[in-house]
Amino acid sequence: MLYEGKAKKLFKTDDSSVIRVKYLDQATALNGARKDSVAGKGSLNNQITAFVFEELKQKGIQNHFIRQISKHEQFIEALEMIPLEVVIRNVSAGSFAKRLGVTEGEPLAFPVLEFYYKDDQLDDPIINDDHVKILQIGTEKEILAIKQEAHKINLALIDLFGKIDIQLIDFKLEFGKRADGTILLADEITPDTCRLWDKETNDHLDKDVYRRNLGELVPVYQKVLDRLEKAFH
Amino acid sequence: MLYEGKAKKLFKTDDSSVIRVKYLDQATALNGARKDSVAGKGSLNNQITAFVFEELKQKGIQNHFIRQISKHEQFIEALEMIPLEVVIRNVSAGSFAKRLGVTEGEPLAFPVLEFYYKDDQLDDPIINDDHVKILQIGTEKEILAIKQEAHKINLALIDLFGKIDIQLIDFKLEFGKRADGTILLADEITPDTCRLWDKETNDHLDKDVYRRNLGELVPVYQKVLDRLEKAFH
Repeated sequence: MLYEGKAKKLFKTDDSSVIRVKYLDQATALNGARKDSVAGKGSLNNQITAFVFEELKQKGIQNHFIRQISKHEQFIEALEMIPLEVVIRNVSAGSFAKRLGVTEGEPLAFPVLEFYYKDDQLDDPIINDDHVKILQIGTEKEILAIKQEAHKINLALIDLFGKIDIQLIDFKLEFGKRADGTILLADEITPDTCRLWDKETNDHLDKDVYRRNLGELVPVYQKVLDRLEKAFH
Repeated sequence: MLYEGKAKKLFKTDDSSVIRVKYLDQATALNGARKDSVAGKGSLNNQITAFVFEELKQKGIQNHFIRQISKHEQFIEALEMIPLEVVIRNVSAGSFAKRLGVTEGEPLAFPVLEFYYKDDQLDDPIINDDHVKILQIGTEKEILAIKQEAHKINLALIDLFGKIDIQLIDFKLEFGKRADGTILLADEITPDTCRLWDKETNDHLDKDVYRRNLGELVPVYQKVLDRLEKAFH
């Protein structure tokens, strides 16, 4: 095993350029302080992220996804991960609403991008471009590349989820670097990492169901996967 | 009275373009949760900030300062204040050190600029350029102007404090707008708003003496004023 995260485990393969990811039946909140076993979640997220990354490739957005190998597992390209959480927000929600006093649900006049320094011990603090540079997380040029790519992904995801009657409120991305310095979308795009609201009912179709104790998580994630499969297969 | 802050009161004058500021004998920490009466502090800060703003004018940096009118009071230009705290850091200290896990006292490779949204109810959260724009605190152009001016002020202050054997660790600025849109340095520059370390001893010559219970505040602020007067008068 290479790494154990909150929702997945990463394993080496015979090919050093390929990593096997296993999605876990585990839900966490509050930076891991709350943790529950949720049967079925791992396979749903593995399928959803495989689906979304494949669709993004179709739309010309390169990423680390290679192929799904089982219900819980997929192969991805080995990258040097950049310790940044890149958040884009289309509508005020969650920590943005709370920190800045903007009512949850209020649409934002433009997509707001935020960087968080991925460091569990520091509780993933929000940082600005100067911090990214001073902490040597990325150069000016890399910051620009990441921002441009994140905004492109936002447009692609708005379109993708729009087709299944879901409004993309906000989401978190992570990027990695190839040996040649190319920056590539990595990690996952799932209801764990996006806020997805049903366009008709405004129901939460994402991890807020778990975070805020709004009901069962699995049927909600299943709904997202079902809609994706119905619309795109 | 126009406004009561944590360390000063603002009063109207007969001239609507001029405000009278009275510096208070009051020290606060933790966003006002801790508050003490400190005899002598108001007059020291009034004199120090008058001194620094006058010196900045000599160096070509426009600001709101008009003139000192008594030990505790000064006249300033009336401006529409921008609800931003603009922090520049030359050396890791305080919240930067804690939030990002960088040892206090470590010099930074370049001056790091931070924006905080000045809102007591929200506890002055750190924000990025996108937040400044989405909250309509400032436009892209105004952000650029503020950053450029803040970096210019940093160089001027490093020089000014360097001449009195003080290392400028970090500081907070506030800006205001004239009716014509010009952005101008405002508020105060004192040991309340700067971290100032004695170049020889590394002693704190600033509000950390109060924040961290390192001793009496007044003799320390007096030392800063004495050195300024000795070097520049």
